[in-house]
Amino acid sequence: MAATRSVMRAVRVFEFGGPDVLKLQSDVSVPVPKEHQVLIKVHVCGVNPVETYIRSGTHARKPALPYTPGSDVAGVVESVGEHVTAFKKGDRVFTLETLSGGYAEYAVAAANRVFPLPDKLDFRQGAAIGVPYFTAYRALLQKGRARAGESVLVHGASGGVSMPRRQLLGALLPAPASALLGVSCVSRGLQVGLAACQIARAYGLKVLGTAGTEEGMNVILRNGAHQAFNHRDPNYTERIKACTGPGGVDIIIEMLSNVNLDADLQLLSCAGRVMVVGCRGRIEINPRDTMSRESSIIGVGLFLATEEERRECAAAILGGVEAGWLKPVVGLEYPLEKVAQAHEDIIHSSGARGKMVLLV
Amino acid sequence: MAATRSVMRAVRVFEFGGPDVLKLQSDVSVPVPKEHQVLIKVHVCGVNPVETYIRSGTHARKPALPYTPGSDVAGVVESVGEHVTAFKKGDRVFTLETLSGGYAEYAVAAANRVFPLPDKLDFRQGAAIGVPYFTAYRALLQKGRARAGESVLVHGASGGVSMPRRQLLGALLPAPASALLGVSCVSRGLQVGLAACQIARAYGLKVLGTAGTEEGMNVILRNGAHQAFNHRDPNYTERIKACTGPGGVDIIIEMLSNVNLDADLQLLSCAGRVMVVGCRGRIEINPRDTMSRESSIIGVGLFLATEEERRECAAAILGGVEAGWLKPVVGLEYPLEKVAQAHEDIIHSSGARGKMVLLV
Repeated sequence: MAATRSVMRAVRVFEFGGPDVLKLQSDVSVPVPKEHQVLIKVHVCGVNPVETYIRSGTHARKPALPYTPGSDVAGVVESVGEHVTAFKKGDRVFTLETLSGGYAEYAVAAANRVFPLPDKLDFRQGAAIGVPYFTAYRALLQKGRARAGESVLVHGASGGVSMPRRQLLGALLPAPASALLGVSCVSRGLQVGLAACQIARAYGLKVLGTAGTEEGMNVILRNGAHQAFNHRDPNYTERIKACTGPGGVDIIIEMLSNVNLDADLQLLSCAGRVMVVGCRGRIEINPRDTMSRESSIIGVGLFLATEEERRECAAAILGGVEAGWLKPVVGLEYPLEKVAQAHEDIIHSSGARGKMVLLV
Repeated sequence: MAATRSVMRAVRVFEFGGPDVLKLQSDVSVPVPKEHQVLIKVHVCGVNPVETYIRSGTHARKPALPYTPGSDVAGVVESVGEHVTAFKKGDRVFTLETLSGGYAEYAVAAANRVFPLPDKLDFRQGAAIGVPYFTAYRALLQKGRARAGESVLVHGASGGVSMPRRQLLGALLPAPASALLGVSCVSRGLQVGLAACQIARAYGLKVLGTAGTEEGMNVILRNGAHQAFNHRDPNYTERIKACTGPGGVDIIIEMLSNVNLDADLQLLSCAGRVMVVGCRGRIEINPRDTMSRESSIIGVGLFLATEEERRECAAAILGGVEAGWLKPVVGLEYPLEKVAQAHEDIIHSSGARGKMVLLV
């Protein structure tokens, strides 16, 4: 068994800026796992829109320079810290949160944020589980308390594209950052939306979804929705009501609350709940609408999940993989050398193809 | 044992209008309880602001004329329908919902909406339990899932008075009806607020309350609040934050959502919830505020409670009476002959004195 090399190839960012600030270097030190950490030999790393905002320096989160981007990693355990017993060298694993950055040949992660990668999934799929599946499970089950037999509307999965450009572009943001924001709605929303459709379908809910294009509707239907609605159709909420009947929809997974929340309250059943998964601004509502149905508006933020809740998410996701219904959708693939191109493309692609990944 | 008389004194409304349409008559037929009903000899009937709106004909609920107002009754069982086993003649009882109207010597109610009146309470107190205690319990425990050790802000208990008159007066309503609405916020809000303070204190929560006057703050403090804040103080939300610390408040019982909801979301703890108990219009919020704390906005409507939930409310309230901490606050008292005066006064009183009652 060869010893771990001391240097590796990794993408480094020395200054915030455009895609060209992503520098692939070959002499980066391989991190050493501390007591409760795992060193992963990265096979595939997912690319998320948020990583482009962080790189551009316009995001609230600004890492100390230089840094290595990337968090959704799938690979093989290379070594473990002295207190780690859950993993050993050679284990196939995935994580949504590295400490050293995922666009690299090796990455360290806290052992309690690392999960076994089922044999059924290849590394590309492992890197495509990521935040979307954890968020969708948390929204539906942990915070939304979805029950079999209920109905769910996965709303605004690709909603961003139907918004007037003016609404998307925050006046306070420089133009390049604003341009990114619009795409974030599409890509992140779609990933969470597809995960929510798969999970809800498998858990026995009636699944309705909205999209803004034929392609988007087809993607939703292929991933578990019983019915898809085009939210560019002026009568689409009436069509949804006709589909759910007078009872209304029990849960709405809302990716675009600042556009849809007021209307959502009209679509809900008694004791229905809107799960706020995405939001880009303010909106006027009538709180009395919640009284007449005893409905709820509930925020979802994965970062607030406890360790126990994260383990629950992972167990549910692994159960879905084993049962066969959970299938992470992999989109465009790039070698590590093409990382700048990947960052270019993720903000210009429709996102409907699935999760973008880097092959390390 | 004297047989039940066949006619009784009762207030009748033959046409919608001002307080003078309330006619006390002495030849009204005593209702006969059907299979699952109870006939109550009314000793005291609570007066609620909503009864003035219904009487004026401006309320969404318009009973068929003529009708007898009143729902919060305390008295003694006179007779029961053939399938009623839970009650017998002579039992002291209270209800929040009569079928024939409570401003009368006798009233029928569905047996499953009638509850035993503890010996500790006189009939005036029995008529003062009513909707406020059931609503407060439902908001705090059934929908809000309050736990001992959490903090609760009972907000806007007398909030109506601080609103600009323009906000209170719906443009669509005729002036007399609009004038009534303002008082509704005060009186109903205060009754629910006091009930919430008593219940929350007894269940081990830290209780904060707001009011718009010194008198209101003192009433809140006498009824369980650990601290009272004057919402006319421009810095009162800062004072609340200073009191709760950075964690924020766990539950807000919100009587005036259209004014407070946006600011409420800033006061909440992680997993905190705003219980929407009162609302008089629309308000702009930022749904993202719910994501950053995974907080909830939850509507409360007692009319949606199941039979089982109503029994739970009643059991909790009776438990509180037995334990001694639940003390319905009785305000102004009127004989049945002065019912028109009572309707005049309830819309002009501050409501801070407690529940208005008619002695039958």
